[in-house]
Amino acid sequence: MPCQSSDELKALVKEARPYTKNGKVADYIPALGKENPNDLSVAIYYPDGQCISAGEIDKKFTLQSVSKVISLALVLMDRGQGYVFERVGMEPTGDPFNSIIKLETAAPGKPLNPMINAGALVVTHMIKGNSVQERFQRLLSFIQEMTNDPTVTYSEEVARSEFETAYLNRALCYFMKQYNFINEDVELLMDLYTKQCAIEMNCLDLSRIGMVFAMDGLDPLSGKQIMPIDVARICKTFMVTCGMYNASGEFAIKIGLPAKSGVSGGIMGTVSGRFGIGIFGPALDEKGNSIGGMKLLELLSKKYGLSLF
Amino acid sequence: MPCQSSDELKALVKEARPYTKNGKVADYIPALGKENPNDLSVAIYYPDGQCISAGEIDKKFTLQSVSKVISLALVLMDRGQGYVFERVGMEPTGDPFNSIIKLETAAPGKPLNPMINAGALVVTHMIKGNSVQERFQRLLSFIQEMTNDPTVTYSEEVARSEFETAYLNRALCYFMKQYNFINEDVELLMDLYTKQCAIEMNCLDLSRIGMVFAMDGLDPLSGKQIMPIDVARICKTFMVTCGMYNASGEFAIKIGLPAKSGVSGGIMGTVSGRFGIGIFGPALDEKGNSIGGMKLLELLSKKYGLSLF
Amino acid sequence: MPCQSSDELKALVKEARPYTKNGKVADYIPALGKENPNDLSVAIYYPDGQCISAGEIDKKFTLQSVSKVISLALVLMDRGQGYVFERVGMEPTGDPFNSIIKLETAAPGKPLNPMINAGALVVTHMIKGNSVQERFQRLLSFIQEMTNDPTVTYSEEVARSEFETAYLNRALCYFMKQYNFINEDVELLMDLYTKQCAIEMNCLDLSRIGMVFAMDGLDPLSGKQIMPIDVARICKTFMVTCGMYNASGEFAIKIGLPAKSGVSGGIMGTVSGRFGIGIFGPALDEKGNSIGGMKLLELLSKKYGLSLF
Amino acid sequence: MPCQSSDELKALVKEARPYTKNGKVADYIPALGKENPNDLSVAIYYPDGQCISAGEIDKKFTLQSVSKVISLALVLMDRGQGYVFERVGMEPTGDPFNSIIKLETAAPGKPLNPMINAGALVVTHMIKGNSVQERFQRLLSFIQEMTNDPTVTYSEEVARSEFETAYLNRALCYFMKQYNFINEDVELLMDLYTKQCAIEMNCLDLSRIGMVFAMDGLDPLSGKQIMPIDVARICKTFMVTCGMYNASGEFAIKIGLPAKSGVSGGIMGTVSGRFGIGIFGPALDEKGNSIGGMKLLELLSKKYGLSLF
Repeated sequence: MPCQSSDELKALVKEARPYTKNGKVADYIPALGKENPNDLSVAIYYPDGQCISAGEIDKKFTLQSVSKVISLALVLMDRGQGYVFERVGMEPTGDPFNSIIKLETAAPGKPLNPMINAGALVVTHMIKGNSVQERFQRLLSFIQEMTNDPTVTYSEEVARSEFETAYLNRALCYFMKQYNFINEDVELLMDLYTKQCAIEMNCLDLSRIGMVFAMDGLDPLSGKQIMPIDVARICKTFMVTCGMYNASGEFAIKIGLPAKSGVSGGIMGTVSGRFGIGIFGPALDEKGNSIGGMKLLELLSKKYGLSLF
Repeated sequence: MPCQSSDELKALVKEARPYTKNGKVADYIPALGKENPNDLSVAIYYPDGQCISAGEIDKKFTLQSVSKVISLALVLMDRGQGYVFERVGMEPTGDPFNSIIKLETAAPGKPLNPMINAGALVVTHMIKGNSVQERFQRLLSFIQEMTNDPTVTYSEEVARSEFETAYLNRALCYFMKQYNFINEDVELLMDLYTKQCAIEMNCLDLSRIGMVFAMDGLDPLSGKQIMPIDVARICKTFMVTCGMYNASGEFAIKIGLPAKSGVSGGIMGTVSGRFGIGIFGPALDEKGNSIGGMKLLELLSKKYGLSLF
Repeated sequence: MPCQSSDELKALVKEARPYTKNGKVADYIPALGKENPNDLSVAIYYPDGQCISAGEIDKKFTLQSVSKVISLALVLMDRGQGYVFERVGMEPTGDPFNSIIKLETAAPGKPLNPMINAGALVVTHMIKGNSVQERFQRLLSFIQEMTNDPTVTYSEEVARSEFETAYLNRALCYFMKQYNFINEDVELLMDLYTKQCAIEMNCLDLSRIGMVFAMDGLDPLSGKQIMPIDVARICKTFMVTCGMYNASGEFAIKIGLPAKSGVSGGIMGTVSGRFGIGIFGPALDEKGNSIGGMKLLELLSKKYGLSLF
Repeated sequence: MPCQSSDELKALVKEARPYTKNGKVADYIPALGKENPNDLSVAIYYPDGQCISAGEIDKKFTLQSVSKVISLALVLMDRGQGYVFERVGMEPTGDPFNSIIKLETAAPGKPLNPMINAGALVVTHMIKGNSVQERFQRLLSFIQEMTNDPTVTYSEEVARSEFETAYLNRALCYFMKQYNFINEDVELLMDLYTKQCAIEMNCLDLSRIGMVFAMDGLDPLSGKQIMPIDVARICKTFMVTCGMYNASGEFAIKIGLPAKSGVSGGIMGTVSGRFGIGIFGPALDEKGNSIGGMKLLELLSKKYGLSLF
């Protein structure tokens, strides 16, 4: 991997790392619980193929909720905006990401946005293909293309573990099935969704995905437009309004980047026209975001003036 | 069946029947949708074995939510009050019977009472036995004993139809499974629950069950105490505080009997020490109670001074 | 006061008193906070004028929420059922007594029942009279008639203290004013409501009110029907379905009496046709009911078979 | 007024105006109800003092919710971020702008963000000054400075009308007073808040305010930094995440500008470094945003590539 260790990034990681002590590794999935809470790594990927990094850069982690924004991109390409936004809303919510309440009180059964679990489940439901296997393969290929790494795959252990315990997600699915927002067999959807969440990579790979979003869907190295410009922009907008769970509003004010986090401790960030960011720090704050990763992004944003606002 | 047609009851049915025009037969289950909305029948069963009736007394209907109070009685006998009320609350709720909101906002995952769907599912989950078959057979035998009719069974058609479409109940189950209030396989529980709801009888049978509750669990004809006194009384209390969906408060004021209704149009009523009432009228009001049955009970309560209060 | 000390009641008070140690005196009103948490007293008033008692029988306390059932009786007489129940519902709620949520989510602005704060405020709003002074005097006279004690009045100190701090009740009032369930000046209503809550008596007086409800509104000693039978019965029904805050369901199962409690530690109970009960024990459980009083009622109900069910 | 009529803007207004037929003028305030639903006007103000416009440019309207972002800027200057964000959150909410539910269910009494009514009331509460008069004058001077128009004032008629009917806002205030997020007399706060909402201007003035935000608080014509850079940026961030009521998410995706709307039909938009936009179109969509104004901004954003994302 040709990613250069950077003294500047190292200094920022050093400054952010002590904050990991105030966080906790997610423990509801055994595989996540085994992570070292002090880990903190970052990679920045530029459109010219250059890359700088710091920290335990080789550590792999599963995407978890980071995958929500990628499946959304695929589904917008598969189905078009009209079809998609009839089935999932565009509005942020002040509720936790796994809340079921709004499914009953708002337009019944229609999730408020694609970044909460209910919405992400509907999105994954819309991935085209004749079988779970085919649909998963299409998503994986899309990711392999963005990372330019055909070896990216998923962790069977994590997928199985989540499949066995995802009762709340099943509750969300059945609720939406009642209202026809989901039509397929819930167990098949759970199979696909837990595999999606278990796709595994390191923060270099993740930074390259962020770079593709930063370039509005273009991979400047291959010259290929991996997704249409408006798809990339819609995804970045959701990252701003609801990418960081119910800390998204605070994140927009303090950091101001399109970013998406997962409970594995991964964060993908994107700075339009400039670069992508991949971060891994498994110790989480109480909202479910990487606590060291948040600090690191705050330092990066201040130092390099990365805020959109 | 030795149940005597009664002119007095006939007159009351005649007075109540026009109200059925303002109601609607439940149509989410095909078998229920086929009922005649004008049907209205009633039987009153006395402790000495006498019985009076009026209307289409031979029509069978499924118990639906009426079964909730019978499974509760069985489970209180199976498990004891302590065990049961750790897993389901005792408080009425102002929400609809199929609402999921309180499962998230109140003690998470613990249903407020055994008469809403969430609570009834936990109750059915607690029925003892080594298999769905055995557990269902135990419930059915309990009912056959109260009706003194060993031919009572369930409608396979209705059970199957509900099993295939009960997405909302599955959502409730998975939500409660997340919080360990349900531990078994949800599909097995749904199998048992939909069979329970599909147990079929006519209003004479139902009135005999009401009579057993009226006698605090004693069948005076066989001399057998079918359930302990305190179990019968707890069940009657729940019928008063939350037996008629979220019209229970109004029902207590206007009619004042322990009663339990189902969306099939059945209502079981009980007048302590005096008699049991079985009613069938499939046209429902907007809260899900038999609209003709409610009127009939109001007339009966006024005429015979049946209110507890 | 011709109320006889009773050894039997003394024994029950002795058994219940230790439970007061697990409770806490309400402290949000200074006057309530000064009470002795170990106090526990009870009076039972019979239709023939006999009375038995135990404990600190002379201690006075303010009615607080106990007054809700009395103002309801007055308003049902003033306005009739039709008018009243267009403005306040009949259904129990699983929410705390001071919750505002259902005012927004259910029929907007219409409180679910007259025993929660929102409902009680609408009820007090409906008391007839040309001024707060006149309306309060009418309520007080009604109470004096039931207690047969013309010296009953209110605590100015408690009323003033509650008037100054009742922000949540003002929030409820303005919300209901938005939806036209309240039309008068909110400050005038708060003046009337806080005086109502501050009406003061001892448990002997309270037991006599309970006796009038037990006799369906008749004062057998004066021969006067103080309120119509159906008004008394409606009030008793609400006491059963929602008289003990959101412990009403459990209370119905364990004790089974129409009863109404207040955060001062007062409880009025009523046993139809037999007697009224007045209890004072200022140490409260976490739901806001007198903890010693609840125990005492449980002992009384078991010993004398007082449950309705 | 040195604002030039622009053929390009005229064409866009012509294209957007038919959409006003699908909207409705707000009618809960008589003064708003008198507006002509077909009105639609726009001004764009550049940092060099140039201005282009189209439509009924001289029509004045009250700011209503547009004022929320201006009072927030003032309060951030008055109190600092730490103080302010202890009292109001930063998170978008999926609930309507006037909802009270989250005040009870989230951190009790603390509003989720400054753009919903509850949050805006707390913000106005924090405006410094010794009297309502002085506080209002400080806000007005701040606005006069941004518009460079010392004649800007408020509509007494609108302020009085809103003061008399703002029951829901009073409910929100008292709820927050209960939890100490508001400490002053609610009537004084309502006086100040309704005057703030009734500040009146035309869309030229509004576009100049938008320009000052676009320049991060600098008035390039006077050379004065009217508010600190970070205050301007925080305000623009809130405009993106929650400036357009609960259509903010959709607005971010389709239009992508920091903007704030009011029920008068005003919208202030801001394009960082480039210009400010003022729009007036009193016909509203069902979420409370100017329906013609939304269309106009969509056309402008597409034509000139104004989206942040």
